[in-house]
Amino acid sequence: MRLRLTLEYDGTGFHGWAAQPGLRTIEATVRGALERVYPRSTGLAVAGRTDRGVHATGQVASVEAGAGPSPGRASAALNAVLPADVAVTDVQEAASDFHARHSALARSYRYRVWRRPERSPFETRGSLWWPRPLELVSLRESACLLVGEHDFRAFTPAETQHEVFVRTVESAEWVDRGDELDFEITADSFLRHMVRTLVGTMLEQDPEQVSRLLEARPRSEAGGTAPPHGLYLVGVRY
Amino acid sequence: MRLRLTLEYDGTGFHGWAAQPGLRTIEATVRGALERVYPRSTGLAVAGRTDRGVHATGQVASVEAGAGPSPGRASAALNAVLPADVAVTDVQEAASDFHARHSALARSYRYRVWRRPERSPFETRGSLWWPRPLELVSLRESACLLVGEHDFRAFTPAETQHEVFVRTVESAEWVDRGDELDFEITADSFLRHMVRTLVGTMLEQDPEQVSRLLEARPRSEAGGTAPPHGLYLVGVRY
Repeated sequence: MRLRLTLEYDGTGFHGWAAQPGLRTIEATVRGALERVYPRSTGLAVAGRTDRGVHATGQVASVEAGAGPSPGRASAALNAVLPADVAVTDVQEAASDFHARHSALARSYRYRVWRRPERSPFETRGSLWWPRPLELVSLRESACLLVGEHDFRAFTPAETQHEVFVRTVESAEWVDRGDELDFEITADSFLRHMVRTLVGTMLEQDPEQVSRLLEARPRSEAGGTAPPHGLYLVGVRY
Repeated sequence: MRLRLTLEYDGTGFHGWAAQPGLRTIEATVRGALERVYPRSTGLAVAGRTDRGVHATGQVASVEAGAGPSPGRASAALNAVLPADVAVTDVQEAASDFHARHSALARSYRYRVWRRPERSPFETRGSLWWPRPLELVSLRESACLLVGEHDFRAFTPAETQHEVFVRTVESAEWVDRGDELDFEITADSFLRHMVRTLVGTMLEQDPEQVSRLLEARPRSEAGGTAPPHGLYLVGVRY
């Protein structure tokens, strides 16, 4: 039985998704829970291998489950053995060829900026505190420039395992939620650190500079990489 | 110079507002920050002495500050020395007879219930997880019964320092926010554990039972006391 799992996690206490010896990772934690509920499960895959400190509200994983609870009972069974900072929010039976990463058509991320002059005790772990004034119109101009097919090499570390830097951004916008200002972006896939570097650059540079960076400029010309604790993988489309 | 401070805190790491020897409390933490920024400050008072684990987004304190930064600079100065789980969100100069507790006309609390079948990693510290079905109409009927002047002795511990149990509830309602269902209540003042016991009782008993409890019944007939981590002091009116 092939399962598609939707996962939510607070990334604060994890060294990212990918399993690493001796470190607490989401992959190892989820695999541990799967092994208890579905002892013969194999082939855990995930739509977005989030970095250390990055959160998710709509991560998707696939697994070949073997014998165990029905999909309708799987969430409760898995949540009973997962720690408090990870939860399974949905489990569906999937087609035998479904693969969380390879089958994904698009991923959506949200970057949360907390822009009140005073910091918030409730936002320490979950958003970037930005008490300085923000030019919302400039941010929106920059976001619009990202839509479409572009070479995003300026927005990923210069030392890279990526070979192709062209990505297609379906939508990119800044959403005004009062004290909270969110950058929301959907693309076919993302380069490493891409959303965080886009955010860091938009916060520091004007739309003209952002436009120039989309002409395959080197990483050194873009802005800083925004910290991971503001970033959420919010959904995956198949 | 008399100051009125608005405070926000995540109550998770505190043993409540009131200073107690050897325990981390919000009062002692705020007083420590005041002593650094206004070395001659005296007479710290607060609108609502919240219990251990209870949060605030709109707590109000008053203090006689002595020499120090102007009110316009006070938030930044205090937040620089306060820990991450407390913040000052506003500081105003107040009339010389202003007292955060005695001058308060009404307090407002919110109790957050997370009612999705699956728990959320982001709600562990900040809401009550209630995966069982809720009868929203019954809850709303119960809330409406609370409005007005009633004897609330059923909703505070039997061993009590209160002498008067009559309180006037200005408004009480359940607000549907999707996966989140909030109980919001405003009254002139509150008995100890009153909001939490009202919530616990409404979740367990029907409106008819709640109605009967308002006839000055003993604590033993009311429901459980909902846990503190769902409760927020959200505002005070003067």
